[in-house]
Amino acid sequence: MVVARLIERKRDGGTLSPEEWAELLDGYVAGRVPDYQMAALLMAIMWRGLRPEELAALTDGMLASGDRLRLDGIAAPKVDKHSTGGVGDKTSLLLAPLVASCGVPVPMMSGRGLGHTGGTLDKLEAIPGFRTDLSLRDAEAQVARIGCVMIGQTPEIAPADKRLYALRDVTGTVESIPLICASIMSKKLAEDLDALVLDVKTGSGAFLPELDRATELAETMIATGEARGCRTVALLTAMDRPLGHACGNALEVEEAIAGLRGEGPADLMEVTLALADEMLLAARAVPDVGAARELLHAAIASGRALERLRQLVDAQGGNPAIVDDPGALPQAPESAVYEAPAAGVVSRVEPRRIGQAIIELGGGRRTTDDVIDPAVGFAITAKPGEVVERGQPLATVHARDAAGVAVGLRALAEAITIGESAAPLPLVVRRLARETASC
Amino acid sequence: MVVARLIERKRDGGTLSPEEWAELLDGYVAGRVPDYQMAALLMAIMWRGLRPEELAALTDGMLASGDRLRLDGIAAPKVDKHSTGGVGDKTSLLLAPLVASCGVPVPMMSGRGLGHTGGTLDKLEAIPGFRTDLSLRDAEAQVARIGCVMIGQTPEIAPADKRLYALRDVTGTVESIPLICASIMSKKLAEDLDALVLDVKTGSGAFLPELDRATELAETMIATGEARGCRTVALLTAMDRPLGHACGNALEVEEAIAGLRGEGPADLMEVTLALADEMLLAARAVPDVGAARELLHAAIASGRALERLRQLVDAQGGNPAIVDDPGALPQAPESAVYEAPAAGVVSRVEPRRIGQAIIELGGGRRTTDDVIDPAVGFAITAKPGEVVERGQPLATVHARDAAGVAVGLRALAEAITIGESAAPLPLVVRRLARETASC
Repeated sequence: MVVARLIERKRDGGTLSPEEWAELLDGYVAGRVPDYQMAALLMAIMWRGLRPEELAALTDGMLASGDRLRLDGIAAPKVDKHSTGGVGDKTSLLLAPLVASCGVPVPMMSGRGLGHTGGTLDKLEAIPGFRTDLSLRDAEAQVARIGCVMIGQTPEIAPADKRLYALRDVTGTVESIPLICASIMSKKLAEDLDALVLDVKTGSGAFLPELDRATELAETMIATGEARGCRTVALLTAMDRPLGHACGNALEVEEAIAGLRGEGPADLMEVTLALADEMLLAARAVPDVGAARELLHAAIASGRALERLRQLVDAQGGNPAIVDDPGALPQAPESAVYEAPAAGVVSRVEPRRIGQAIIELGGGRRTTDDVIDPAVGFAITAKPGEVVERGQPLATVHARDAAGVAVGLRALAEAITIGESAAPLPLVVRRLARETASC
Repeated sequence: MVVARLIERKRDGGTLSPEEWAELLDGYVAGRVPDYQMAALLMAIMWRGLRPEELAALTDGMLASGDRLRLDGIAAPKVDKHSTGGVGDKTSLLLAPLVASCGVPVPMMSGRGLGHTGGTLDKLEAIPGFRTDLSLRDAEAQVARIGCVMIGQTPEIAPADKRLYALRDVTGTVESIPLICASIMSKKLAEDLDALVLDVKTGSGAFLPELDRATELAETMIATGEARGCRTVALLTAMDRPLGHACGNALEVEEAIAGLRGEGPADLMEVTLALADEMLLAARAVPDVGAARELLHAAIASGRALERLRQLVDAQGGNPAIVDDPGALPQAPESAVYEAPAAGVVSRVEPRRIGQAIIELGGGRRTTDDVIDPAVGFAITAKPGEVVERGQPLATVHARDAAGVAVGLRALAEAITIGESAAPLPLVVRRLARETASC
């Protein structure tokens, strides 16, 4: 294999064979293929794309480069949910215990905040003592015991993806749909899933704001998952405003707990339950959406879902008291209410600006070494379409100090627009599954 | 400067400013910009191209990354010729002494064999003792003394180009017209030239076989040279068959000497004199082509051109006896004549196959560490269009041993096609200068 010839072929719009992809990835992980050749190939992929069989080979190669969960001992179909990332999106914190409490095992591997979007691991680590760095063997044992686990990508999972991801980040090769798909799916398939529900965000705060691109990514991931025997369904959901009220790590944990008690904001509950429906259906745990919804409501109303969260927190070293006492979560010392500067209709609550403000407050990272302040963030009750009076409270900023409060209030003033009308996206924009996916 | 943002901008079809190009190249040479980022940028350039002002900035940055010849002390306009590379193309060996003997200084920096094409430095080093690694200061003194010098690219010349060239070679980013142009022109401009004549090869044995691409490269180089005050003219010449008879290092030196004596093959003399005309005209040494040709014929007929070669060889440590005694050049111990296998018309003499065979015989490199056998090669008298009898001698192979002879004869059988007709390119296909170049 002469790597330069393979790069040239892709550059010229040609196709690499599955064997060539496997050899390339092996060589890359072993250090025989240097970063500079891989960087040129990645840019050629941005240019020319990948054919479905190339994407499959790349995904398989990345999966095969490392270890994976082994859940064969658990008879029930395993399911997970993956989101492309948003602001205020704490659905994972609800879904793992909720779906597990309905008898469907959820082995969930999540990531950290990326760009302006939050990360499930960062949110979980707002819980005092909570460990996300379980070994694969410990994670397997926990799924067998309590039906769910929430961990990070361990070093043994898809090391080829880990190195490629870091390389893409510095070589302008992040925004390629096949590369995004291979990266996500190689990690998800390492969870030994029977089914996967994708929450592909669309709208101004999404990684891929345009509906067309989000749809293309969803269809590509569905085709990749289904070809590997993993039932894959996608909901395209709104990220043109934050989801729920809470934005910021500890605040989102608190809101997730409220949600498991049946007291979450309406939009958060609607998206969470829509995703949970799909998880139960994909796991073949229920015959139809009606049965799914009935099971989910019962899990919440009976307290079983909340109890499962308590077990999860306890199992992973966290303080289970947070489930009943939000005061046990980190609290920001300063806060201030942001009031509507004028009467009118809330026309925009821009999630990107809010996500950036959380980073400015210390609740997210500028570089991978940054330590996160879990307590800071926002509670934004204003929703697009709402009619407000001048002076009406729209949001609260929680900050470490007075300077942070000022930063947060300025961000709210920039993010929230009062106008004459609003045209928010529907919360669930579209559902895609194999029968609707084109490739 | 965040390099990933610059890569993204070029990837998306945008433009980098001259300051950004300068900073990128400075950073690359200093090691702050790693190879993997540069490799991704190079592939993005292959994809999106460069605007003229970007090409200018890249060329200037590569030139400025190193030292250059300083020939201000020489009043006469300095001129050089650059070829994009061919098989049997020994025109440089004739042109430097010939043009210098007409009173026009020629500071010539050349390269080594690349792919299937030969390199002037390799040919010169077939002359026992000949040194091509003169320092820039010694080269300047020699131009002042005898009007010409023939050296390689010293380590001080355009180090950014040297590193980029090596990186392009292994990342599938060689065949980009702006990158080729910046690489060639940064080195040529380092010769402190007043004028440059480009020999852009076209046809099956050329680096860019298609006439359109060769024309685009020529026009790009003309625009780049002229914008920097270097009069630049290009001839597009035929490389659909070897030039002259001799192909191989020492054999080509011998043929060049014959040419300076006025006894070279007709096609070699035609191309050489056409290029020499342009060099004299571009240097403003003659008023028109008629005067140029008269001066050149006189330099050959009087022996002045050959005498200048003798001085050049002597000045650079070579054995000047080779000028009068070709037997002083390395001789291959074995040889064999290849005869026409059938009567007919010579329809093809494929230069790529001949160039590859020279490498197989040991006369070229497979890797940069290979040591060249200067004696081996071919003398191919057959030319496309010639009518031949069965059994008529068409070529001679010169090899180190009997196995080499067999390799050479097989290559000749593959390279030379006898058919019913031939359609060779005219030797000089097109002339391009500022008035004809479109950019």
